[in-house]
Amino acid sequence: MKRQLARELEGKIGETVKIQGWVHRIRNLGGIAFILLRDRSGVVQCVVDTKEIDIKGLKLESVVEIIGRVKEESRVELGLEILVQELKVISKVVEDLPIEINNEELKANLDTVLNHRVLSLRNLKTNAIFKVQAALAQGFAAFLKKEGFTQIFTPKIVATGTEGGTELFQVQYFDKKAYLAQSPQFYKQMLVGAGYERVFEIGHVYRAETHDTSRHTNEFISLDLEMGFIEDERDVMALETRMLKEIFAFIKEECARELDLLEVEVPEIGDEIPSIKFPEALEILRQEYGKEDLKMDLDPEGERLIAKYVKERYGSEFVFITHYPQAKRPMYTMPAEDGLTHSFDLLFRGLEITTGGQRIHDYEQLKASIISRGLSVESFSDYLEVFKFGMPPHGGLAIGLERLTGQLLGYKNIRQTTLFPRDRYRIRP
Amino acid sequence: MKRQLARELEGKIGETVKIQGWVHRIRNLGGIAFILLRDRSGVVQCVVDTKEIDIKGLKLESVVEIIGRVKEESRVELGLEILVQELKVISKVVEDLPIEINNEELKANLDTVLNHRVLSLRNLKTNAIFKVQAALAQGFAAFLKKEGFTQIFTPKIVATGTEGGTELFQVQYFDKKAYLAQSPQFYKQMLVGAGYERVFEIGHVYRAETHDTSRHTNEFISLDLEMGFIEDERDVMALETRMLKEIFAFIKEECARELDLLEVEVPEIGDEIPSIKFPEALEILRQEYGKEDLKMDLDPEGERLIAKYVKERYGSEFVFITHYPQAKRPMYTMPAEDGLTHSFDLLFRGLEITTGGQRIHDYEQLKASIISRGLSVESFSDYLEVFKFGMPPHGGLAIGLERLTGQLLGYKNIRQTTLFPRDRYRIRP
Repeated sequence: MKRQLARELEGKIGETVKIQGWVHRIRNLGGIAFILLRDRSGVVQCVVDTKEIDIKGLKLESVVEIIGRVKEESRVELGLEILVQELKVISKVVEDLPIEINNEELKANLDTVLNHRVLSLRNLKTNAIFKVQAALAQGFAAFLKKEGFTQIFTPKIVATGTEGGTELFQVQYFDKKAYLAQSPQFYKQMLVGAGYERVFEIGHVYRAETHDTSRHTNEFISLDLEMGFIEDERDVMALETRMLKEIFAFIKEECARELDLLEVEVPEIGDEIPSIKFPEALEILRQEYGKEDLKMDLDPEGERLIAKYVKERYGSEFVFITHYPQAKRPMYTMPAEDGLTHSFDLLFRGLEITTGGQRIHDYEQLKASIISRGLSVESFSDYLEVFKFGMPPHGGLAIGLERLTGQLLGYKNIRQTTLFPRDRYRIRP
Repeated sequence: MKRQLARELEGKIGETVKIQGWVHRIRNLGGIAFILLRDRSGVVQCVVDTKEIDIKGLKLESVVEIIGRVKEESRVELGLEILVQELKVISKVVEDLPIEINNEELKANLDTVLNHRVLSLRNLKTNAIFKVQAALAQGFAAFLKKEGFTQIFTPKIVATGTEGGTELFQVQYFDKKAYLAQSPQFYKQMLVGAGYERVFEIGHVYRAETHDTSRHTNEFISLDLEMGFIEDERDVMALETRMLKEIFAFIKEECARELDLLEVEVPEIGDEIPSIKFPEALEILRQEYGKEDLKMDLDPEGERLIAKYVKERYGSEFVFITHYPQAKRPMYTMPAEDGLTHSFDLLFRGLEITTGGQRIHDYEQLKASIISRGLSVESFSDYLEVFKFGMPPHGGLAIGLERLTGQLLGYKNIRQTTLFPRDRYRIRP
């Protein structure tokens, strides 16, 4: 008999079926017992006559196979239950569970949850987070493919950093020193110039930052894109606006049950996301909130306040902040007037989830920018080569996948939306 | 005026259009010149009246913008050409090209090609390789999503190796020592047990192997999958057979032009790929080819000969070799009779492109297997936890994306189908 999933049983009333999964809950009422069996598709109620089938030793989270008849039962979620004829333990539980899985919310603290990450993922809500995350990444890829982007896989073992060598993890690479890539920035630009014009990557990036906040980990997934033949950064912002609309529409379809379970409202995005220039943002913070301590960048409080302002004023949960000062942007950023740049961040519910902008494409200008920052042109020679041989105007962006997931689903700590987080104190499991 | 791509000009005969791209070739016939303009979609012929427009200084590979009228021209590939009205250089070429790009085949040796990887990718054939590679990865993801698999992103910074600590790159992780993951093997198994049941990952893996062959690099992309609730390894093999059929059908659609340009024949896959048990494979090698030097594993020559045998006998370019000896398979491999295992490799045109098998799911059996190999149970405690709490029978496989690309497209050296290869001697560009 072929195994059926819980969600596949609809329309099979009266049939005898085989199901397999984990014992999610047991309710023993004496002569009769209810077992909730959980598989990857959902949870189904199974009714056991305990005079016929002995379930005394059966432990929560055992993997079992049940053969039984499907019966209509309007009081449960699926509208059906299984009258159990046979029950077989496929894989048993040999210790007491270190955390309770079958509650609606995990009741352990975050450290315990992460120490037992794999078991914590059996909790229905925790499990749903990473189904949504997968769909976000797939929506990103699907949209970009349709827009003529080529998916790329660039190396994570690199000879130099993109910013001149700070915050890099060092790798012992045979007899050489190498580093883990902070971002695919240089490679994606190079591949625009290699003729692909439009490229994207979904990959790991590494930041050896020592600070320990709820917004940072040291390894995360970056959704990167880069596109050639643009006018300026507004082309990239327009693409991101359309992309987020499509990704959100996609996950509403794809993850309807998960979003429902997590009680998440997917935000509406209009045809244009409000956009505020950095100097204006400072002005708003001064005038509206009396916040005067910012000069060259926004801090988390500033980002939250601007988001609040935009939400109240324009009803948008997103806002682009554009034209950051040159001093706060990397050497490859296209300069604009007054010491500003053709750059942007996208804030979502008060947190930066995207950094992007137009890049310098002229070889001499890029060299001059590197020198002006006290960096060595020679150390960027691999990156610079393509700029000597015809490089189109281009720009791009990077979205932190775990941050996007967290902001969308309402989790405060990035570790909650990272499958196996890596931070200063954690490299396990 | 909006930019048009070369491939979008069909049906625009008589219209004035704007195109942008690289100068692929120039043929100057005195009063008239032909410029081939290359963009991400293809190459279009542009006709310049050199008395009107001066192209004396125009260099190959410059990025230009051309405005002109589309005219029918049956003698060229697209069936049209552009009569140039305006030509503007957007980004110039400031040095002599280190390699010739516009030949049908790159004429430089592999080292030179890789030293100038970005420019070499402008060559039409070289460029096409990585469009096919992207489509292979996308076909993999699309098939698995349809089959109920969840895409996962597992950490590449890990505390221990999967095989007991050999061939690992070491990372200085703050004040700790960590390693780069050799494979997502443990994580994908753990996530099967976390309730996802079916998971896949497309990600980087790292092997600190010191050998230097045409089949190995030290960083590559692994197409990994793992599935729960299987009978044995044959379920995984059946899935891979269906998957390869679908991936190949997908790339035939998606990459018709690239495959044509590369003169590639995509192999047919029947409903079943021939399958030979390892001991029988040795017997065939002895009897048919007098090859007697193999005992516990196939070597590259053995793989080529078996592939030749299967091709001649069954007409298949693929063959599964199953039941490898326990001594040659990792500790998590499910044992079979006679010291063999529930494992398989898939050979494609004589090269192993997949390793897979059923895994041990019983906690005690897995612990015993670890101990029997002289490894420490304690060092695998993160991995082992889920096996104590109900782990379904499961198995999976890993496909090397660059190997699959190379075997499909007929490249002998894996570096040719790796975007930016990393080997013992190369970490740049």
